[in-house]
Amino acid sequence: MTITTPAGFRAAGIAAGIKASGNKDLALVVNDGPARVAAGVFTANRVHAAPVKWSRQVLTDGLLTAVVLNSGGANACTGPQGFQDTHATAEKVAEALGIGAVEVAVCSTGLIGEFLPMDAVLTGVERAAKELSNTGGADAAEAIMTTDTKPKNATHSGAGWSIGGMAKGAGMLAPGLATMLVVLTTDARITAELADEALREACRLSFDRLDSDGAMSTNDTVLLLSSGVSDVAPDAEAFTGALTAACRDLAGQLLSDAEGSTKDVAIEVVNAASEDDAVTVGRSVARNNLVKTALFGKDPNWGRILAAVGTTDAVFDADELDVAINGVWICRAGAAAEDRSLVDMEPREIAITIDLKAGDATATILTNDLSHAYVHENSAYSS
Amino acid sequence: MTITTPAGFRAAGIAAGIKASGNKDLALVVNDGPARVAAGVFTANRVHAAPVKWSRQVLTDGLLTAVVLNSGGANACTGPQGFQDTHATAEKVAEALGIGAVEVAVCSTGLIGEFLPMDAVLTGVERAAKELSNTGGADAAEAIMTTDTKPKNATHSGAGWSIGGMAKGAGMLAPGLATMLVVLTTDARITAELADEALREACRLSFDRLDSDGAMSTNDTVLLLSSGVSDVAPDAEAFTGALTAACRDLAGQLLSDAEGSTKDVAIEVVNAASEDDAVTVGRSVARNNLVKTALFGKDPNWGRILAAVGTTDAVFDADELDVAINGVWICRAGAAAEDRSLVDMEPREIAITIDLKAGDATATILTNDLSHAYVHENSAYSS
Repeated sequence: MTITTPAGFRAAGIAAGIKASGNKDLALVVNDGPARVAAGVFTANRVHAAPVKWSRQVLTDGLLTAVVLNSGGANACTGPQGFQDTHATAEKVAEALGIGAVEVAVCSTGLIGEFLPMDAVLTGVERAAKELSNTGGADAAEAIMTTDTKPKNATHSGAGWSIGGMAKGAGMLAPGLATMLVVLTTDARITAELADEALREACRLSFDRLDSDGAMSTNDTVLLLSSGVSDVAPDAEAFTGALTAACRDLAGQLLSDAEGSTKDVAIEVVNAASEDDAVTVGRSVARNNLVKTALFGKDPNWGRILAAVGTTDAVFDADELDVAINGVWICRAGAAAEDRSLVDMEPREIAITIDLKAGDATATILTNDLSHAYVHENSAYSS
Repeated sequence: MTITTPAGFRAAGIAAGIKASGNKDLALVVNDGPARVAAGVFTANRVHAAPVKWSRQVLTDGLLTAVVLNSGGANACTGPQGFQDTHATAEKVAEALGIGAVEVAVCSTGLIGEFLPMDAVLTGVERAAKELSNTGGADAAEAIMTTDTKPKNATHSGAGWSIGGMAKGAGMLAPGLATMLVVLTTDARITAELADEALREACRLSFDRLDSDGAMSTNDTVLLLSSGVSDVAPDAEAFTGALTAACRDLAGQLLSDAEGSTKDVAIEVVNAASEDDAVTVGRSVARNNLVKTALFGKDPNWGRILAAVGTTDAVFDADELDVAINGVWICRAGAAAEDRSLVDMEPREIAITIDLKAGDATATILTNDLSHAYVHENSAYSS
């Protein structure tokens, strides 16, 4: 049920002494092949961390043998020294595994703007390499946690092959309260092209639809590694579907564990003129602090939802908009309809439906409420 | 020191019974002429309230004699009935003053999605018309408050003429925690063209640079009325400068009274390739919840500032960015510089400077922090 569930992968997760707490903070994932196919999706933030620069670069050939990940420090906004530290980490992994540094991706998460304690990192890499095992996935998932309250693992099976995944963070790809890091493994035999296309499509329909607080991390990374051990080559549709399912599973876990949240909110935009319009409207509502605080207050405040819709350039007529919360159509044609007291705001799961009456496209954006605990965690935790 | 300071204006502010609290909730402002020149700027939100639709329409000829404003209800998302209510309000003012309804602008603020208690509104208009006086500006400013903790007035004098203004709300033009309403009066003799141009320029440099929480109201309205009583016709530059100063004064009062804020934050973006770039970068930082919670936590977290800058498409090199907080350059060339412990985060006033090193344009965006009190007010207050 982890990244070591698919055949051909070993992993380890150890306490290297990067975190002051003494918790696990360094993970190593190795693809023993025979294939070394890999793909990656990275933050769109133009201020991106040294490990993002490095990993994007080494992935240009579509091949990776190992991924080293650390929590306890993002190595972001650390200038040339930070990049040298990432490079040194990859070289250390390469040395320990007898491979080249360009076969090693690096991911970091934690505080921005501070240097990593490189002695601890490099010693940790050596120890992690010795502890690699084909049951090490759970330890690896634990070692990448920061403000996560639980590790996040997922698996999905095809006919004779499987996908495993781990994730940390509490946002979406690009956003994120803290950085989102995801590693996916598969023993399916796939080409580099399929890996890249399937990963982009899966991210588009999962992590990209998750918008916890609209903030965009400097370190977000999603990596896919294929060992090909199963020797089964699934067709593109089957593989992409399974990968999307695994990513959605992880995205759901990220949502439920978002910092300080009391609500898991699905914003479904229906009858949009285009999928882009549906996503734009859903995202605008998801990012609106007045909507988010109302959800925290268990207030079915459809007026704030309409106001958020109104800030977008999507196709709609303001006098035609319908809005339902948890199945109650409290707004019809841009005005009050069913009694708002009929809406049950008690459950953690809140479903908002927005009917744009402009076409037949649909998209769902997942988000959280804005709570006292969010303010507390993010004002007290320097990240 | 109010909107009745310039000659030619009378105003009243009364408790009409719209607010359950019994506080003042209806204001009337009358321009006794001889001129009736007027201009308006309205919310860019495509979901806009009935009074915005009405006032925009009656202002197409650049003439207004009166403005009626109510708190206690926004009359937004209220469909055709809501528009009829606005129309009826304007008709009642016209009847009381012996003018035409098309000479009357209407502004509303308060709960979205509910009808106004029209009996109270119409009776209130009659009473307010009887209480009009050339010292009624202070009462009017009080009657438009919602979550404001204090009324907001400003005046600015030219050579033989003056400008008065009142405001309510806690956001910027378009955004706003609650709706922003502003009425400006002047006894300067100006053309409709100058009124329009000066108002747009003044708003651009004041309310448009205020971004308290990135949310955009359905009701935001700024109106300028000129009586021409002074018979002095200032040149465009002098008048625009004075109007901008009055608007900046009111914008500063809005900022200081923003819901639940503990910090007044000025984000100055310098050496941008264009003023648009500077505004875009400043706004991105101002709207970032991670930056805002860090400010609440007195944490000089320049990494979150860089991450917010990185989400924009402004011209800059991420490895060249400098950031100062309250005068301490804690980030140089995209990495840590001066010791962050040197930054004094105790004052309410926080100055953030971001040097893009890409040109010579500058802009300053004003914002607030994101506090527990913000979450409390906006989760408990249904607006």
